[in-house]
Amino acid sequence: MDSFAFIGLGLNDEKGLTLEGLEEARRADRVFAEFYTNPMPALDMKRLEKLIGKKIHVLNRTQLEEEGGRELIRSAKEDSVAFLVPGDPMIATTHISLRLSLSKTGIGSRIIHGPSIMSAVCGATGLQSYKFSKTVTIPYDPPLPASVLETISDNHGRGLHTLLLLDVKADQNKQLTIAEALTKITSANPSLESRLAVGVARIGARDERVKASRIGLLINEDFGGPPRSIVVVGKLHFMEADALRIICGAQDSDLRENY
Amino acid sequence: MDSFAFIGLGLNDEKGLTLEGLEEARRADRVFAEFYTNPMPALDMKRLEKLIGKKIHVLNRTQLEEEGGRELIRSAKEDSVAFLVPGDPMIATTHISLRLSLSKTGIGSRIIHGPSIMSAVCGATGLQSYKFSKTVTIPYDPPLPASVLETISDNHGRGLHTLLLLDVKADQNKQLTIAEALTKITSANPSLESRLAVGVARIGARDERVKASRIGLLINEDFGGPPRSIVVVGKLHFMEADALRIICGAQDSDLRENY
Repeated sequence: MDSFAFIGLGLNDEKGLTLEGLEEARRADRVFAEFYTNPMPALDMKRLEKLIGKKIHVLNRTQLEEEGGRELIRSAKEDSVAFLVPGDPMIATTHISLRLSLSKTGIGSRIIHGPSIMSAVCGATGLQSYKFSKTVTIPYDPPLPASVLETISDNHGRGLHTLLLLDVKADQNKQLTIAEALTKITSANPSLESRLAVGVARIGARDERVKASRIGLLINEDFGGPPRSIVVVGKLHFMEADALRIICGAQDSDLRENY
Repeated sequence: MDSFAFIGLGLNDEKGLTLEGLEEARRADRVFAEFYTNPMPALDMKRLEKLIGKKIHVLNRTQLEEEGGRELIRSAKEDSVAFLVPGDPMIATTHISLRLSLSKTGIGSRIIHGPSIMSAVCGATGLQSYKFSKTVTIPYDPPLPASVLETISDNHGRGLHTLLLLDVKADQNKQLTIAEALTKITSANPSLESRLAVGVARIGARDERVKASRIGLLINEDFGGPPRSIVVVGKLHFMEADALRIICGAQDSDLRENY
């Protein structure tokens, strides 16, 4: 058996864990977790520890990035380790880097995949997965990198959708709001106000919220707590247009330019 | 409670189901499933039925697409329905279409997300999720649509990776092999032989197989049974190059042109 397993926690609470993930975490000698790459406010650590039947040691950004996951690597040399991470484990580059470090130390690892925003956003919005192009993250602190606007524009020029991930300030337990992110991009390029977009919050939760409209209007919507993302919409297939109307409350007038 | 739940089965076998998905399927009055949009050869129906504690009614393409999911809609008018689908539920457009039909009939639905190839392929290869652009499917039967080569070329021009999904012949329980798919694209454009790509098979399973090399060589590799996919690689970050070497067995000489 590989002595290290990256296990995805999925999108919302501890029930996003797969049956295989739960089995592997129960079997491991030591269980670690991190929540700074993605907020999971609905996840209850007490319930998760009870489910797994073990104490879970939560690592912060410093322990994982600056200290290079030393504790994880040290543990994996002696015991079997389960490392629980939000979403699907390898979306954050820091986890890829850890996997490579483990491998260079001679420690084999496997990934037990979980639901990810990268695919879930298609279901939540009705937009088709094969029409998404390059994803970008809107950073918390200014300035807005030129690459963000370039990516939105490049994707749009090809008729494709852009997923905008919103930065997290893990130490303050905060995530950029949809309004804040849209303000950043429209301040940099006011013509984006007429562009169609979808705001999504708490995908997979009972109180999931999804709303499509022109960015100039979307900026006034309150989406509530994290996690939140945005899709800037490209050319629409008629079934996608239907979905934006029916699932995401878009007006006909919002959709007209995207056919 | 919504009377219809789309539930993702994940990537490999019945243990890819999330805890929430299992709970919801156990609670539903009737349980349906389909496996034609994506093969899950390791999934054992008997074990899945035992886990859920109910008979599972499997639908084929005709029942779902030509008959418009009539049985599902009829059932959902009377009972609560769980519909199990491979991967994350809404990746196939036929499921979006069903969700819209349900909604037009006044039936609310929710999605219980599962692991999907769209994000899992990043973990399996070490390629970074935000560098993937538009995905395409290589169809089983000729001719190869011009849009396939155009997408590979467009994405490559932007330095981005392309996920190639391989078509399934569900009625014959077959999926295009990696060699067959690569033969199709290199026959149409022989210059692609020198392009770097990664073949992936059975992601998430114990016998997962991942191999990166120039397409001209990759075509000779045997990847074994389905499910299988291909990534045509764009410009590499040094950590991605490391991952292709360490995780996917790429040679230094294969990587040179992708920096």
